[in-house]
Amino acid sequence: MSCVFCAIVAGEAPAVRIYEADDYLGILDIRPFTPGHTLVIPKKHTVDLTDTPPETLAGMAVVGQRIARAARESGLHADGTNVAINDGKAAFQSVFHIHLHVVPRHDGDKLAFAKGMLLRRDPDREGSARLLRAALAQLDESAQE
Amino acid sequence: MSCVFCAIVAGEAPAVRIYEADDYLGILDIRPFTPGHTLVIPKKHTVDLTDTPPETLAGMAVVGQRIARAARESGLHADGTNVAINDGKAAFQSVFHIHLHVVPRHDGDKLAFAKGMLLRRDPDREGSARLLRAALAQLDESAQE
Repeated sequence: MSCVFCAIVAGEAPAVRIYEADDYLGILDIRPFTPGHTLVIPKKHTVDLTDTPPETLAGMAVVGQRIARAARESGLHADGTNVAINDGKAAFQSVFHIHLHVVPRHDGDKLAFAKGMLLRRDPDREGSARLLRAALAQLDESAQE
Repeated sequence: MSCVFCAIVAGEAPAVRIYEADDYLGILDIRPFTPGHTLVIPKKHTVDLTDTPPETLAGMAVVGQRIARAARESGLHADGTNVAINDGKAAFQSVFHIHLHVVPRHDGDKLAFAKGMLLRRDPDREGSARLLRAALAQLDESAQE
């Protein structure tokens, strides 16, 4: 399989999963800008904004919002998030299976964020994943009450 | 009116408009990273990802995709786009009425882009707007054929 995200969706390549629904997967970026940096991936392969159906994109955005809210409410204590799609090689897209980045941010983290963009690592990825999964479960519970 | 985007929506503050639908407005960023840098704004005021209804966010994403496609097909000849929401002050949000950035990019423009992020100006905003509007009209026509 030539697409690494399709391989992850198929369970044939490893990833730290934090979210799964029928049509979307949420995994931690292997080169995170900040701890908890997540990618929302539609399970069905498309490349970028030119070939992705609008309804798929709409769904990605809604999943991204959910993860952004979880990042704020989680033990990661995010104060905000950058949510972005890099559409095309010219825009720094590096995996050609469309994905949406959710990058947890903290007040006054500008320098740490710039450093994170260069270093791109999280010393405790599993820990970050646990915090996000717990917050997502909490959001689900609140929605059901 | 204390919210500048609400004032723009109400027609009480100036903006270079490139897109308008019932619930959304597309305007040029007054401090663009690149020519054609557009903001998609829901007409109804909400602040960020914590209070914006998912269906509003989904609609913003779909409008953003349309503008991203127009940027590629327009006389701006974009090779890609960065599409982003800065959710919260910690994430560089500066106007607290949610908006989605669509930033046209070109192959090999990394340095020009970095420079654009510092300078944030477009010597021909009206020209950029005309090119985007023309490409959006063309997309509409193609959809109707």
